[in-house]
Amino acid sequence: VRIRVNETLAERGEFALIDALRSRLPVGRDVELGPGDDAAVIAAPDGRVVATTDVLVEGLHFRRDWSSAYDVGRKAAAQNLADVAAMGARGQALLVGFAAPRDLPVEWALSFADGLADECAVAGASVAGGDVVASRQLVLSITALGTLDGRAPLRRSGARSGDVVAVCGRLGWSAAGWAVFRRGFRSPRAVVDAHRQPAPPYSAGPEAASLGATALIDVSDGLLADLGHVARASGVEIVLDSAAFDLAEPLVTVAAATGEDALTYVLTGGEDHALAATFPAGVELPEHWRVVGRARTGEPQVLVDGELYAGEAGHTHFGND
Amino acid sequence: VRIRVNETLAERGEFALIDALRSRLPVGRDVELGPGDDAAVIAAPDGRVVATTDVLVEGLHFRRDWSSAYDVGRKAAAQNLADVAAMGARGQALLVGFAAPRDLPVEWALSFADGLADECAVAGASVAGGDVVASRQLVLSITALGTLDGRAPLRRSGARSGDVVAVCGRLGWSAAGWAVFRRGFRSPRAVVDAHRQPAPPYSAGPEAASLGATALIDVSDGLLADLGHVARASGVEIVLDSAAFDLAEPLVTVAAATGEDALTYVLTGGEDHALAATFPAGVELPEHWRVVGRARTGEPQVLVDGELYAGEAGHTHFGND
Repeated sequence: VRIRVNETLAERGEFALIDALRSRLPVGRDVELGPGDDAAVIAAPDGRVVATTDVLVEGLHFRRDWSSAYDVGRKAAAQNLADVAAMGARGQALLVGFAAPRDLPVEWALSFADGLADECAVAGASVAGGDVVASRQLVLSITALGTLDGRAPLRRSGARSGDVVAVCGRLGWSAAGWAVFRRGFRSPRAVVDAHRQPAPPYSAGPEAASLGATALIDVSDGLLADLGHVARASGVEIVLDSAAFDLAEPLVTVAAATGEDALTYVLTGGEDHALAATFPAGVELPEHWRVVGRARTGEPQVLVDGELYAGEAGHTHFGND
Repeated sequence: VRIRVNETLAERGEFALIDALRSRLPVGRDVELGPGDDAAVIAAPDGRVVATTDVLVEGLHFRRDWSSAYDVGRKAAAQNLADVAAMGARGQALLVGFAAPRDLPVEWALSFADGLADECAVAGASVAGGDVVASRQLVLSITALGTLDGRAPLRRSGARSGDVVAVCGRLGWSAAGWAVFRRGFRSPRAVVDAHRQPAPPYSAGPEAASLGATALIDVSDGLLADLGHVARASGVEIVLDSAAFDLAEPLVTVAAATGEDALTYVLTGGEDHALAATFPAGVELPEHWRVVGRARTGEPQVLVDGELYAGEAGHTHFGND
């Protein structure tokens, strides 16, 4: 497909845009009927489908001057596929709502599709359908579908007193990247890239189920906030051991430069889409799962080294939560 | 849940709003795990799931001064559940992305949820999950999931030369209502209500499959435009007989008042979400299916009384399609 330089969505037109997007989005094996009809048909081999939806709004969830269109595509796919993984499921397909200003460059839309496609490839999923409409603000709504392959869904409510708490994936990297951006810098590159493109440990979701996890959650709002959901849903107190966390070198560097605390990034930073699980005590975990605490009888809350953590826990959307 | 008069989303806060919305959205039998975890789990009894997504943008797809929040909820659910029906499937569940300005009254969001719930009840579906975020413009993204209950999906590409073309549901009513609104009027009430709340014939979708339909489509952009999709996907020419259409009294009334043609509303009006199907010749159809034409060997196009129809066919989103 030929693209004129600086061509806008209005100049290209809806149907030509959809054709161009579709040509960039390969359809995988779980999609029995892909884009182009009234609806798609996706395989649900065990007679159930896992489904989740997230909306990303320009200015709130991403900035076009901080992230490329490709980055936003990777991130939009990742945060939804991570929610599927957090049920112990395998991501299969995305449906993508693309509401965009008429003057958006076509190139932005196509690079966004490339980002979606590449992140889908990492997770073994594909784009099965979507909708393209005009809006004043760029709003991306993604629905991810997945399959449990016969396993029971891993809920937030299954943690039991005595379980260990373990995490898999990066924590605090995206928040450190955001701190860098906010100050007008673009390095260290590792955290900047982590902010632009999260790297959820997709296969660790089904793996956690196989290892006997009792609860599983995607760390999207920050570890303390998200483990707080587990604590309340399960009726347990979660106690974390700050010494158990890996304070990676780029986080320490950023914390030193900003006067913040690397541990705060790890405990309260969102959007890395790590997975946090509880497992029965005594479970043998692969190395990429790190035990960072345990669940016990008590108040449904999360403590760090025996106390409530003083740092800010997570972020909210409407300002007074 | 108590609502303060004129309370805004910002005053209520995200989590309290989600709780209030959830209390209005009953979860039905096909939803194995509803809202509140990382993802929902929906039954897929025949090992497949039908999935479709549509985005509604304020000012483009609805106006708050023309439609109540409840109407918008009915319409948003209807247009997605109609897409599921148009595959020959039964709607089961919606996932709802709700991007709204911080100053939106909470009452608007709750009435919207009531509209969603009531339209879901008509179709036998429920709301299984969603996401609530802040945005400048009100953008509603709905994903509908459904099941084929063992039937093959009814695609746009299955029409064969010799098939009859039949429609089920209202045609032109929403367009006539829009013509009334545009001129600043609020009657005839029947077409105004039809514009606010479409009434898709959901059960006619699976019924068409049982009756042996060869192709099926949801009439969302206008009958000529949507049958044009069938003609091109199937490689047939479709010829309609204008005398076969029912020009309902309210359409004739509006056409007389506006100087337009009632047949133009029927042939080009979108958003009623009627169903249009092709069936093998000789099929016996129930009375609510009306035969309006046939498919034949020829150009992949739609003719009315042997000619291309002069009226405008359908609408587009970015302005130059």
